Amino acid sequence: MGCEAQQENYWRIVVEKAEIGLIGLAVMGSNLALNIAEKGNKIAVFNRTPQVTDEFYANAGALKDKIIPCKTIEEFVESIRPPRPIIIMIKAGEPVDQQMAALQPYLDKGDIMIDAGNANFRDTIARFDRLKDTGLTFIGMGVSGGEEGARHGPSIMVGGTEESYKRVEKVLTSIAATYNNDPCVAWLGNDGAGHFVKTIHNGIEYADMQMIAEIYGILRDGLGKSAAEISGIFGDWNKGRLNSYLIEITEKVLAAKDPATGSAMPDVILDKAGQKGTGKWSAIEAQNMGIPATAIEAAVAARSLSAIKSQREAAEKIFGTPDYKFPIAFGPDLLKDLELALFAAKIGAYAQGFAVMAEASKEFNWSLPMPVIAKIWRAGCIIRSQFLDEITSAFTKTPDAANLIVTPAFAEMVKESIPSLRRIVSAATASGLPVPALASALTYFDAYRQARGTANLIQAQRDFFGAHGFDRVDGKDIHHGPWGSGANG
Amino acid sequence: MGCEAQQENYWRIVVEKAEIGLIGLAVMGSNLALNIAEKGNKIAVFNRTPQVTDEFYANAGALKDKIIPCKTIEEFVESIRPPRPIIIMIKAGEPVDQQMAALQPYLDKGDIMIDAGNANFRDTIARFDRLKDTGLTFIGMGVSGGEEGARHGPSIMVGGTEESYKRVEKVLTSIAATYNNDPCVAWLGNDGAGHFVKTIHNGIEYADMQMIAEIYGILRDGLGKSAAEISGIFGDWNKGRLNSYLIEITEKVLAAKDPATGSAMPDVILDKAGQKGTGKWSAIEAQNMGIPATAIEAAVAARSLSAIKSQREAAEKIFGTPDYKFPIAFGPDLLKDLELALFAAKIGAYAQGFAVMAEASKEFNWSLPMPVIAKIWRAGCIIRSQFLDEITSAFTKTPDAANLIVTPAFAEMVKESIPSLRRIVSAATASGLPVPALASALTYFDAYRQARGTANLIQAQRDFFGAHGFDRVDGKDIHHGPWGSGANG
Repeated sequence: MGCEAQQENYWRIVVEKAEIGLIGLAVMGSNLALNIAEKGNKIAVFNRTPQVTDEFYANAGALKDKIIPCKTIEEFVESIRPPRPIIIMIKAGEPVDQQMAALQPYLDKGDIMIDAGNANFRDTIARFDRLKDTGLTFIGMGVSGGEEGARHGPSIMVGGTEESYKRVEKVLTSIAATYNNDPCVAWLGNDGAGHFVKTIHNGIEYADMQMIAEIYGILRDGLGKSAAEISGIFGDWNKGRLNSYLIEITEKVLAAKDPATGSAMPDVILDKAGQKGTGKWSAIEAQNMGIPATAIEAAVAARSLSAIKSQREAAEKIFGTPDYKFPIAFGPDLLKDLELALFAAKIGAYAQGFAVMAEASKEFNWSLPMPVIAKIWRAGCIIRSQFLDEITSAFTKTPDAANLIVTPAFAEMVKESIPSLRRIVSAATASGLPVPALASALTYFDAYRQARGTANLIQAQRDFFGAHGFDRVDGKDIHHGPWGSGANG
Repeated sequence: MGCEAQQENYWRIVVEKAEIGLIGLAVMGSNLALNIAEKGNKIAVFNRTPQVTDEFYANAGALKDKIIPCKTIEEFVESIRPPRPIIIMIKAGEPVDQQMAALQPYLDKGDIMIDAGNANFRDTIARFDRLKDTGLTFIGMGVSGGEEGARHGPSIMVGGTEESYKRVEKVLTSIAATYNNDPCVAWLGNDGAGHFVKTIHNGIEYADMQMIAEIYGILRDGLGKSAAEISGIFGDWNKGRLNSYLIEITEKVLAAKDPATGSAMPDVILDKAGQKGTGKWSAIEAQNMGIPATAIEAAVAARSLSAIKSQREAAEKIFGTPDYKFPIAFGPDLLKDLELALFAAKIGAYAQGFAVMAEASKEFNWSLPMPVIAKIWRAGCIIRSQFLDEITSAFTKTPDAANLIVTPAFAEMVKESIPSLRRIVSAATASGLPVPALASALTYFDAYRQARGTANLIQAQRDFFGAHGFDRVDGKDIHHGPWGSGANG
């Protein structure tokens, strides 16, 4: 850059400060920065390795005007209009703490560090608390939608003080995805609320994907359908009530051909799934709070079992390969059943996810707004769908519902679809086709709607061996059985 | 006590020191102390409230000779032969740390504090580490068997240094339950190993009990059998391969009559089950390590659902009460199927529990001895059974088995029993009877023995929306699909 150009650049920075700053120009960070610039917000960017910043700026094209590339932290902080919101988009964990420590000395009262990575919400709470008496504050921001979401419109879940959210609301609203012109961004509560909701989003995503995979397995192994045929079936379903991003891409990936062999793409992909931890975190937090999330747990377990392929191969040698023949004949009726089964199971998984969030809201004093969460998931994120619009509406009409499945609209959908899930799970388990997530959703429903369960036997056993006591159906004040103490002989 | 008697008592204490000390004379502690004394070991006891110590000693009868009741910590510590093993049997959590802090100033190099309560093994590891440079050491000791076990022979799972275990081995061996003359006690590894194994024991116990409850539910609601009839069925099963303490007490509690009403006891007990956390801890640790423990998770979830009875009642009003009619006719064939189904599901739950321990053994550097764990669970604890003798034998013959179900002996049992589990789960799900744990065990098996699963679809989806990449079945070095970047549109 020549001296004059430098001078001009200098004045531009001094004259018009950035609305927001962003640290970390890897894939997600650079896409988010371009999105922010494209929506007319001036943004200062910084990367530990200055060449990355140079390259990013060099490739920013028409958006250069809105970008202030910075070589030093001082320069970067100085370029942002106070109170300064600074998005940190780097590897989750320790690096975030290091970045925060490096940044802190340059900041002034009211400045806001925003972690937009995939943080565990417990770390977010700790970071928020650590800054409490410093005059600085912290936002934990869940961003869903992958690279493309970051670039063209993610779903954004914000946790922190309401005041700090107000400072960034305009920018975030401008970059978020929209559903019927509603931006998919919201302030959800204090400290870890945003990252927690993002975690549950991902847990639900795991369940959603696993259930689709199980239906795919029934069609592939139980009914002998080709990837192309199954693609067509998902394509049809995407026009109906299952309409969603995940069903849409299921159609697409099943239709894709492998350039190397000409085979259907999924047929050449190894059946070992990876996971990055958020599904597991969902399951752990659900367990911590004692809220059943069995469909999510089944999905996480299925990924773990997929990863130990050599054990699965050894086991199939021992136990033989079932013929997997599905006991119900292929045809329009079965297709309708499969579609409704997937729909019913999906309701179960979402019901569990929302129940976990309802409990977390109490436990962490967040007042999580259920209808708003469903609303900002309608677009931008991986589980986006019309279905979430129906959840928005159900929770808006019945904000105090104990569970999604007992809201009037969903109760009707469950009544209509559960018989299909029942037929499919019963048939799949009979023929040896693994349906862990579908079965979990069904048994969850069956246990949830049973007024008189079988835990009376468990209470009798616990009292017998551990004198744990029980309550009675008639309310009488007798809390132990006639087995006497010392029953455990 | 007269002056002469006091004098005599004094000399007795000075002359013959106690082999071991015990703090905390509530139900579990006093039973354990009596057990220790009865087996000929001299024991010093202390309780925060001295009256409790007085009462305990006054009621000790012929065992008084072996008991040194102490009023002060100084006196207590002085009464024990160094290096002093001191069992702490008080409320888990904070009180244990307080007691340790109060005790520590009186202890000498080599003394051993032993937490015999229901501690979380992570706390045990922390306590062990905290004492590392003090010359003192710590044992975390899982004790199973309830009050009666403590009094007459528990199963004891020890974690700590091997040297510290040597100091207490004789006492513990004398008080433990025995199975064919083998004492049910063992050193399992460093720091938290004993409490971890106890936690997984309890997780398996949850699954075992839940599966029994589900079979009970099929008999009660699906086949209209009375508690007395079901008691007879479990009584018959207890003579067969299901023979175990839990089946035995199931027969007993189902046969018991309520003194207040004359009804079968379980029929008047409310179907709301309690839980004390160890089942949940099992599930959380399994999730932490990425090892499927879906049968345990289903059992924990079932207890949580049992607790929200008012929600279940409301849901049954909305969805109606199913007639639950089991589609298979009652008779000897069905009874055989139910017995084998329970057996197959039990294998699944134990396989999961042992898989979790195998992974923990690596993760925490414990070298957990699987055959030994099965061995010390054969008697004394709640899940005691002949079945555990078969597990002992299987892991002794095949110590490196990847999973219990692929050991030759268990593979045969699985082959024999899985078809029954399949028929029962298929029929129960068809008729609306909740079988979450049975279904989890079946779907675990179905996924585990499937060489080619459906995770290829999940990998395709993940690559499509997040460019996560995949491996191929043909090993070719191509890790992305032809959808190109920007697929997530």
